[in-house]
Amino acid sequence: MEKAVSREELWNFTAEWKRRDCRVALVPTMGNLHEGHLALLRHARERADRTVVSIFVNATQFGPGEDFAAYPRTLEADLQVLESNGCDLAFAPTEACVYPNGLAGAVRVMASPSLSSILEGRNRPGHFDGVVTVVSRLFNLVGPDLAVFGEKDFQQLLVIRHMTADLGYPLAIESVPTVREESGLARSSRNRYLDEDQRAAAGGISAALQQAVRMLAQGADPGQVERAGTQQLAQRGLEVDYFAVRRAADLAVPEPGDTPLRVLAAARCGRTRLIDNMAAD
Amino acid sequence: MEKAVSREELWNFTAEWKRRDCRVALVPTMGNLHEGHLALLRHARERADRTVVSIFVNATQFGPGEDFAAYPRTLEADLQVLESNGCDLAFAPTEACVYPNGLAGAVRVMASPSLSSILEGRNRPGHFDGVVTVVSRLFNLVGPDLAVFGEKDFQQLLVIRHMTADLGYPLAIESVPTVREESGLARSSRNRYLDEDQRAAAGGISAALQQAVRMLAQGADPGQVERAGTQQLAQRGLEVDYFAVRRAADLAVPEPGDTPLRVLAAARCGRTRLIDNMAAD
Repeated sequence: MEKAVSREELWNFTAEWKRRDCRVALVPTMGNLHEGHLALLRHARERADRTVVSIFVNATQFGPGEDFAAYPRTLEADLQVLESNGCDLAFAPTEACVYPNGLAGAVRVMASPSLSSILEGRNRPGHFDGVVTVVSRLFNLVGPDLAVFGEKDFQQLLVIRHMTADLGYPLAIESVPTVREESGLARSSRNRYLDEDQRAAAGGISAALQQAVRMLAQGADPGQVERAGTQQLAQRGLEVDYFAVRRAADLAVPEPGDTPLRVLAAARCGRTRLIDNMAAD
Repeated sequence: MEKAVSREELWNFTAEWKRRDCRVALVPTMGNLHEGHLALLRHARERADRTVVSIFVNATQFGPGEDFAAYPRTLEADLQVLESNGCDLAFAPTEACVYPNGLAGAVRVMASPSLSSILEGRNRPGHFDGVVTVVSRLFNLVGPDLAVFGEKDFQQLLVIRHMTADLGYPLAIESVPTVREESGLARSSRNRYLDEDQRAAAGGISAALQQAVRMLAQGADPGQVERAGTQQLAQRGLEVDYFAVRRAADLAVPEPGDTPLRVLAAARCGRTRLIDNMAAD
């Protein structure tokens, strides 16, 4: 496996691959890699000749009170995991590589207003602008033919699909289903913040989503499903930010008959904020 | 010469060129082509294997009271000029090609705050955000190895250089000196708005800039030079937006000893707003 931390190192590899007409897949991550990331890497390896996994904890997508400083940084372990899982190039840029004019002098990309102002965007103002600001930079730097994202961050996936198409990037966005623990808890780097009791309570999120999917299949109306899910999470001691039934295509509030749907939840478990979602018909 | 109006048509050509490892130059224009644009095309042809000239009057860089609707659109004549000057591909996209989610749903790119808030940016709020919003799209769509811009829009050139480096595009930005009429008037599509008297008065802009360059060479201080230039333009009946001596690298107000400098002017001649600039030591 190759490693690059600067633009010049990166371009040494990517320029050569392009000359050889290789199909390149990018998997953007913030590191602290787990089974969910490895599912993205496996998908990338199946679909491309060369895979780049980027590791960068991106300041611009964290809000003022959020966990940027505390976010787990485990670069050495991540590099070993990538090497033993067949990644071709680990791109672990410095902040000066991604933001050469500093954060204050950085050109910002503003996500779709309609997609970025709801759900996660309402709870984390500016979050998706930070996401598209860094992802568009990674697209420019790496120049991939496809990029792979997890369905765990479903709204992020839609925001990135929209940004990619709207800005005219000639690349495919592909997604991979959420990887879960046995309890159903979606794999996330933030799970490591949870103690044992919290981890048990957090398993309730996927249970509530599954119940919501069943209720919708049985014809319950979205409002009823949202109330039941919110109640179920509150009973587990979770503080619910939202439990929402939305249209899968654009996260709009569904009209009767709209399909497919997506059920999305965000809840705080102690000081840890967790999100998850599931597909529904 | 080939022509493309959609992404698919464009990518048919550019994908083939990339397979053949051709070096591609992009010349972004708003059409109504004149000698200034042809100098850009000549430069592009010297520096690349294939040249793309884009023609797109970009709504997002015009302010509410500005001349978007009136801006001269002369596509057929432009295509003939490009064909007879050795352009390989004329890319004249529809608005839906550049902004597939409409202007309201468009992802926006925000230019460097420090560069985009002064001079032209102060007089035309949002202008440079619109410029980088469209230029980054053209970079994504065309994927050029270099892009060529005129020094006539000197602040735009710096804003684009900053955006390109900051967002990590692996491409070179090259510039071409301003092409002038015999009177010294910088070539511009907006010159066609001028009547004969106005055109004579507008010639005073380059004369005032030349005088400023001479004064600076003789050791005059920037404040004195700015006052003299402003006065000279006012005497010609022009309404001056700014006449400014700035540091060429970043358009900051120069400290004593800073070189090189750039003298930049914007003035209204009747209802027509004209800009020009010259290098100084």
